[in-house]
Amino acid sequence: MRLVPIAFLAVIAIGTVLLALPPARAGAGAAPFVTALFTATSSVCVTGLTVVDTATYWSPFGQVMIMVLTQVGGFGVMAMATLLSIAVGRRLGLRGRLLARAENQALDLNNPGRVLARIAIVMAVAESLILVVVAGRLWLGYDYAFGRALWYGLFHAVSAFNNAGFALWSDSLTQFVGDAWICLPLTLGVIAGSLGFPVMFELWWTGRKPARWSTHTRLTVAGSIVLLVVGFGVMLAFEWGNPDTFGPLGVADKVLAAFTQGAMPRSGGLNSVDYGAMLPATIAVTIGLMFIGGGSAGTGGGIKVTTFFLLAYVIKAEIKGEPDVVIGRRRVAETTQRQAISVALGGVALCALGCLALLTTSPWLTLERALFESVSAFATVGLSLGVTGNLGAQAQLVLVVLMFCGRVGTVTVASALALNTRPSLHRYPEARPIVG
Amino acid sequence: MRLVPIAFLAVIAIGTVLLALPPARAGAGAAPFVTALFTATSSVCVTGLTVVDTATYWSPFGQVMIMVLTQVGGFGVMAMATLLSIAVGRRLGLRGRLLARAENQALDLNNPGRVLARIAIVMAVAESLILVVVAGRLWLGYDYAFGRALWYGLFHAVSAFNNAGFALWSDSLTQFVGDAWICLPLTLGVIAGSLGFPVMFELWWTGRKPARWSTHTRLTVAGSIVLLVVGFGVMLAFEWGNPDTFGPLGVADKVLAAFTQGAMPRSGGLNSVDYGAMLPATIAVTIGLMFIGGGSAGTGGGIKVTTFFLLAYVIKAEIKGEPDVVIGRRRVAETTQRQAISVALGGVALCALGCLALLTTSPWLTLERALFESVSAFATVGLSLGVTGNLGAQAQLVLVVLMFCGRVGTVTVASALALNTRPSLHRYPEARPIVG
Ligand SMILES: [K+]
Ligand SMILES: [K+]
Repeated sequence: MRLVPIAFLAVIAIGTVLLALPPARAGAGAAPFVTALFTATSSVCVTGLTVVDTATYWSPFGQVMIMVLTQVGGFGVMAMATLLSIAVGRRLGLRGRLLARAENQALDLNNPGRVLARIAIVMAVAESLILVVVAGRLWLGYDYAFGRALWYGLFHAVSAFNNAGFALWSDSLTQFVGDAWICLPLTLGVIAGSLGFPVMFELWWTGRKPARWSTHTRLTVAGSIVLLVVGFGVMLAFEWGNPDTFGPLGVADKVLAAFTQGAMPRSGGLNSVDYGAMLPATIAVTIGLMFIGGGSAGTGGGIKVTTFFLLAYVIKAEIKGEPDVVIGRRRVAETTQRQAISVALGGVALCALGCLALLTTSPWLTLERALFESVSAFATVGLSLGVTGNLGAQAQLVLVVLMFCGRVGTVTVASALALNTRPSLHRYPEARPIVG
Repeated sequence: MRLVPIAFLAVIAIGTVLLALPPARAGAGAAPFVTALFTATSSVCVTGLTVVDTATYWSPFGQVMIMVLTQVGGFGVMAMATLLSIAVGRRLGLRGRLLARAENQALDLNNPGRVLARIAIVMAVAESLILVVVAGRLWLGYDYAFGRALWYGLFHAVSAFNNAGFALWSDSLTQFVGDAWICLPLTLGVIAGSLGFPVMFELWWTGRKPARWSTHTRLTVAGSIVLLVVGFGVMLAFEWGNPDTFGPLGVADKVLAAFTQGAMPRSGGLNSVDYGAMLPATIAVTIGLMFIGGGSAGTGGGIKVTTFFLLAYVIKAEIKGEPDVVIGRRRVAETTQRQAISVALGGVALCALGCLALLTTSPWLTLERALFESVSAFATVGLSLGVTGNLGAQAQLVLVVLMFCGRVGTVTVASALALNTRPSLHRYPEARPIVG
């Protein structure tokens, strides 16, 4: 368990060194240390926040490094989170919780090697599909040379499926706002990657019907659909007439742009419309979607879809006065409820402290921008209201810490919490302080 | 239980009618309906948000109405919350939970009449003390006529102890920023009122030593001290050199202003410095303090001090892998934990929806201002970044709903939750979705 953060730190360190080499930079000289550290962390944590323009600041060598770090980071997150969740399931299984085991059996594979191989297969297939469509479109529709179209297709396929948010176009996907051949595969790739491997595994390998899906898969799929619909609806409703965003677009382009921008906060990080020009109401919803993030053991970030909806069920049970929290004929374990609460409140605390740290190091920021930036870093989304590049070294380091904690923390802490429940040797008498 | 919201609604309705009468307004004609409704709700819910200047818009009759509504609302909140918590304790006692009963015995008074009388005594004593100091100071130090000094002393004593935040000076306490004779009694009154009656009762009547305090009292007192120190420290550190707030003040005045402004977000609502001129970092902390609010069954609002610190203990227990949440040799009941979570997350949801509603009805607001305003209304604080008066009727109604839900909702919902736990007739098999 403790190896996970160390492994991530090691990859980030190697990435920092490589990006700080002179050949990684397009211009003269080498990238400053903090820039290299920030970009390496943003790549490995599949965040996509940038302090320099990926397209012009880095050389092709630097860009390949970013892509490789992204792929390593995305694979690492999926693999480690999946293996950890299997470990948790096994540990619970060993304790005789047969029902818990049956619930998790979709992932109860015999050896870790097979899990890793299957994750690699999923990634290779998904990224190849995206690559073919995007590269083909750039080659045929935009007169890119074949090799260049392939390179752009590969880079953005890796960026999308790993929910990384890096782009080789300085304004991300803005020039393709109405082009479904570019926006759709990248957005669908983001959504697929953010579902998480346990869900993909159950959907693709076990061939179970929805009625027999595990609670985790049902919660993730249904929750993701709800969040996508909310994102789509809010974008369309709030930004429809905004002259700086959707206003000038035709109806079909508005729909495509709403789908893309509604999905990207969770936590793709690419954008075909400038989030910085959106209305405060849209930004508020986007912050909420970013914080919730994607599915567990996927390339998406945030507190995770299951955590959010599980808490909604907890509140529902409390309001109805039911002693058990029941999701579709399954009672949610009380330890799982407490984990969800800890992950959610820990996330709130991290984002609040991060926002405060940004505001103290950069007093020129507004609360809106600081909150957006810190949630984007914590949830490894990579969207920005356009201020990341103006932050000083201290503020950049704040974001580095947020990205690392958001990516590695939620994965390992949740598993650690699930494993380390000690039996109580002594119980104190009960107290009931008045709440509310 | 259901009578509580109805009682509050009735008082608000009466207040609205009275404030809509022509004599209540200083100028010609009567106040518009929404203005009267907003002011009545703000008074009864002891919030203190204003859409018109209390000092100049209302006649002396209108101001007396506001004071009376505030006093009725403050007494009502304290009385109902205390009686409800006793009812909860009794119900639990009847179920044989002797320890829970012992914990709450400080409040296990024999008849509700005695509770109400003691609350009235506390209020009368506290408000008289504040009245004497403030009126004396205005009479002797500011050349107010004796009767006027008395009226001002009374109005602000009621406003302070009931955590109402209304002031007869258009700029609240700004002109008294360095006057400890005005600021200290009002701030101490706010702090005392926000502790809540159960805590006051235990501190004043039972004569128990701190070592024998109930968990509720210990959590409230220790938590309040922590929050006051945080507020004081943040104000002093962040605003020390801000030319628009603390900058021009001498050191002693800075300390006094920091104490006042640090205490008022929880949830006094008076101010001797303009919050609208503060730095975004200070505003972020203020929003957090407002959301947490005061003690249970007091005139303070928010999710309450106990709720916040109880959740901190839940997370601590989770991180340490302890099955029980222990606060000072007492195990917190699991139902209490779930209530705390529901109150806190319900509060987050209300504030988020309120903020969104404000932004959609008033697109000219920034996220910072909308969030500040909605949290101030939900937590019945009454501080503003100076935008309340510019809101349209729809946005004012949003705040009315937030004030009512924040004030009446947290009190009744928490009690309802504590009482309505049903035994489970059927248990489903357990599921453990992956969280985080
Ligand atoms: K991302
Ligand atoms: K107030």
